[in-house]
Amino acid sequence: MDTSTYHNKEATEARAIPPTPRTTLKRHPERGHVEREQIDAVLDAAWVCHLGITTDDGPVVIPTSYARRGDELLIHGSPASRLLRSSATGIPICVTVTHIDGLVLARSTYHHSVNYRSVVVFGRATEITDPAAKAEALAAFVEHVVPGRTADARPATPREVKGTKVLSVPLAEASLKVRTGGPSEEPDDYELPVWAGVLPFTTSAGPLVPDDRLDPSIPVPDYLRAAG
Amino acid sequence: MDTSTYHNKEATEARAIPPTPRTTLKRHPERGHVEREQIDAVLDAAWVCHLGITTDDGPVVIPTSYARRGDELLIHGSPASRLLRSSATGIPICVTVTHIDGLVLARSTYHHSVNYRSVVVFGRATEITDPAAKAEALAAFVEHVVPGRTADARPATPREVKGTKVLSVPLAEASLKVRTGGPSEEPDDYELPVWAGVLPFTTSAGPLVPDDRLDPSIPVPDYLRAAG
Repeated sequence: MDTSTYHNKEATEARAIPPTPRTTLKRHPERGHVEREQIDAVLDAAWVCHLGITTDDGPVVIPTSYARRGDELLIHGSPASRLLRSSATGIPICVTVTHIDGLVLARSTYHHSVNYRSVVVFGRATEITDPAAKAEALAAFVEHVVPGRTADARPATPREVKGTKVLSVPLAEASLKVRTGGPSEEPDDYELPVWAGVLPFTTSAGPLVPDDRLDPSIPVPDYLRAAG
Repeated sequence: MDTSTYHNKEATEARAIPPTPRTTLKRHPERGHVEREQIDAVLDAAWVCHLGITTDDGPVVIPTSYARRGDELLIHGSPASRLLRSSATGIPICVTVTHIDGLVLARSTYHHSVNYRSVVVFGRATEITDPAAKAEALAAFVEHVVPGRTADARPATPREVKGTKVLSVPLAEASLKVRTGGPSEEPDDYELPVWAGVLPFTTSAGPLVPDDRLDPSIPVPDYLRAAG
């Protein structure tokens, strides 16, 4: 994935998120970005985040699926989930989304690094409780993950909507950090007879695995066909 | 990746990590595992975790690389990193490692799910300060990520060792949660004319991208050849 366009851009675009002390990078500031377009691109290319909350026993970090809808992140799950119940009280939370793009193999062990894109969102969640708004959020969720799916799969019943907790986290305090490119070596190390470069990572989807009970006459829908 | 062997095993093996209240799953207990062998397999198949700490402003969750060495996780970085400096004070931290294995496409939007493997480690870090022990930990780090690399790349100099903060987190309170397999539907939904199954995800490495300044006479080492 080409992330080189993220580099060395001035953070002056109209839709930039105003930096705060905790979203301002002290180290490698050149890796930091606040432009919404770039933050959205990273958020829209994934659907699992790591959600962190603080408990009496310390921090808890749990993977959970999410969807971006405009200026908010939607998170959902069981009403019994402690993570969701705690987040719904409006305590500070942190939502982090990370893509690992490659391993940077330097001539020295010290300068080995990782190419990545990571968005960190700080905020407080609000629970969406209105049944119609919840149903809409749940549909947005499925569309974020599999565009086209909501026209096909059975929508949530009122009971299922009631049985799902939906939270909204504003995309108001967030930062994007990106590393791209090859190793940065000590000047003398370029002479070493050591292979150096980048080992890129790519995540691919498919081939599809039909459910054991799938009626074989049901074709693979167009929106899944690319995944074969 | 076949994770079916994780399912329905009794947590009675010799090397199980004793469950604590916060590593005991209240929901989907069948997805929980405490066997060290299975926890290690998940930890050893990745090298980026999400590290959570608590600050005065709330939780902070940041991706960082790690290595498992026996009964500990090693984390390292710049001595200027706030995340590392805070963690080094011995505050409670949480380290989470997640593999996303597939998207579960149910006939109803409600039963859509994700196949995943995730290890959550709770604990307090200890800083490794002895230079020889640090150098050894840094080598273990590189070997965890790229086995064979330490025999090739230039080892860290005393100054580089000094310029790296290395933390050890005991693998003492941890849990593994796994979901595998196809959708679990409402009984009536099996009749719906909707494609259902799993869209698996696979991460692949390569092809290698040589550094711009790489001497072309230097061959790709054996330990990287599989990545081509």
